[in-house]
Amino acid sequence: MELFSFFNSSASYRVRIALALKDIPFEYHPINIRTGEHHKEVYVKGSSPSASVPAMRDGEFSLSQSLAIIDWLDAHYPEPRLIPINGDARARVLELSCLIACDIHPVNNMRILKYLQDELKVTPTQKEAWYQHWIAEGMDAVERLLQRAEKQSGGPWCFGKVPTLADCCLIPQMANAKRFGCDLSRYSLANAIYLHAMADPAFIQAAPTNQPDHIAP
Amino acid sequence: MELFSFFNSSASYRVRIALALKDIPFEYHPINIRTGEHHKEVYVKGSSPSASVPAMRDGEFSLSQSLAIIDWLDAHYPEPRLIPINGDARARVLELSCLIACDIHPVNNMRILKYLQDELKVTPTQKEAWYQHWIAEGMDAVERLLQRAEKQSGGPWCFGKVPTLADCCLIPQMANAKRFGCDLSRYSLANAIYLHAMADPAFIQAAPTNQPDHIAP
Repeated sequence: MELFSFFNSSASYRVRIALALKDIPFEYHPINIRTGEHHKEVYVKGSSPSASVPAMRDGEFSLSQSLAIIDWLDAHYPEPRLIPINGDARARVLELSCLIACDIHPVNNMRILKYLQDELKVTPTQKEAWYQHWIAEGMDAVERLLQRAEKQSGGPWCFGKVPTLADCCLIPQMANAKRFGCDLSRYSLANAIYLHAMADPAFIQAAPTNQPDHIAP
Repeated sequence: MELFSFFNSSASYRVRIALALKDIPFEYHPINIRTGEHHKEVYVKGSSPSASVPAMRDGEFSLSQSLAIIDWLDAHYPEPRLIPINGDARARVLELSCLIACDIHPVNNMRILKYLQDELKVTPTQKEAWYQHWIAEGMDAVERLLQRAEKQSGGPWCFGKVPTLADCCLIPQMANAKRFGCDLSRYSLANAIYLHAMADPAFIQAAPTNQPDHIAP
């Protein structure tokens, strides 16, 4: 198994958590999205036609898109499962994961912030306001979904006693928001999950600071 | 089955296609996102804690996020399946669907364009350039994924002889891009799929112009 990843990419971080939770050994290929390595022909043709990180390769089979990769990992390395097989539990895990992966993360990732800065010439204050606006709107929704789940699940993870795809999405998103200086203290359920994850060996192993391509700020 | 939808929302359109393909009868509840109905307490508390469209309700169970909804529909109304049960086919369908749902759609939806206009005071030309930039980057990637699939599948849909979740995502995204005046003619595989879908009864039934809340431009 090979993983194409950038240490600071939240979507890569999701897959790294999944690999660590399942204890799957893999070869790490750093793809520096700051210098545009994800657009290079050798990477796009060879591993990721979607020109993004993460991507994985298993023999001749390569796959991009973090949620698709984690779904694939669940099929091939089912222990522990990260997406419940069926029922309401499955729907709830996918709902929260999609909220983060579709509604929150994409509007604040590096390429968007770079476009705002380089093409639209926004000020640092405007860029920060943009970032914080979407985090607040998105995390408000996350906390509401967690409140609804809390009645049944009781934690310490998003949906009960074991981590799922939802935790693989939530923790990188919160780490990202904290890196940008967002105050997340009012999201008490999300915060409790974050603190729990910060002490979990798999989440520690997958963290940006523990990757071979980590660059100090 | 109840659907909370806005005629022009691509994510709602995805679910409408799925419902039509599966021939599931449902009650249509229009949620006008232009006037902010998706943020109203009655909707957020009652149906969509994520404060977005689409959402569905089946008895006491409600669910938001289009991909989670379609996954739920596949479990409860398995014919025809829109997400292959396993194998590479499943991975490929999820990969293309996530590319559209995570990398393309979120950065060009209404709330983002409104923020650019109202908060960042971009000019109409800058807004158009923003829209077209992300469509070009995203559709380039879509076409590469379709080219890779073409060798095996042969069409007329994204991945072979039957429509899947990928088609439920692709057609609304292309319709949206066309509405914003993007020239998609260079995407020959995507275009062939779009033309095929435009003649399919389920896709016609799900189209924005055929919804009860349709507003003429």
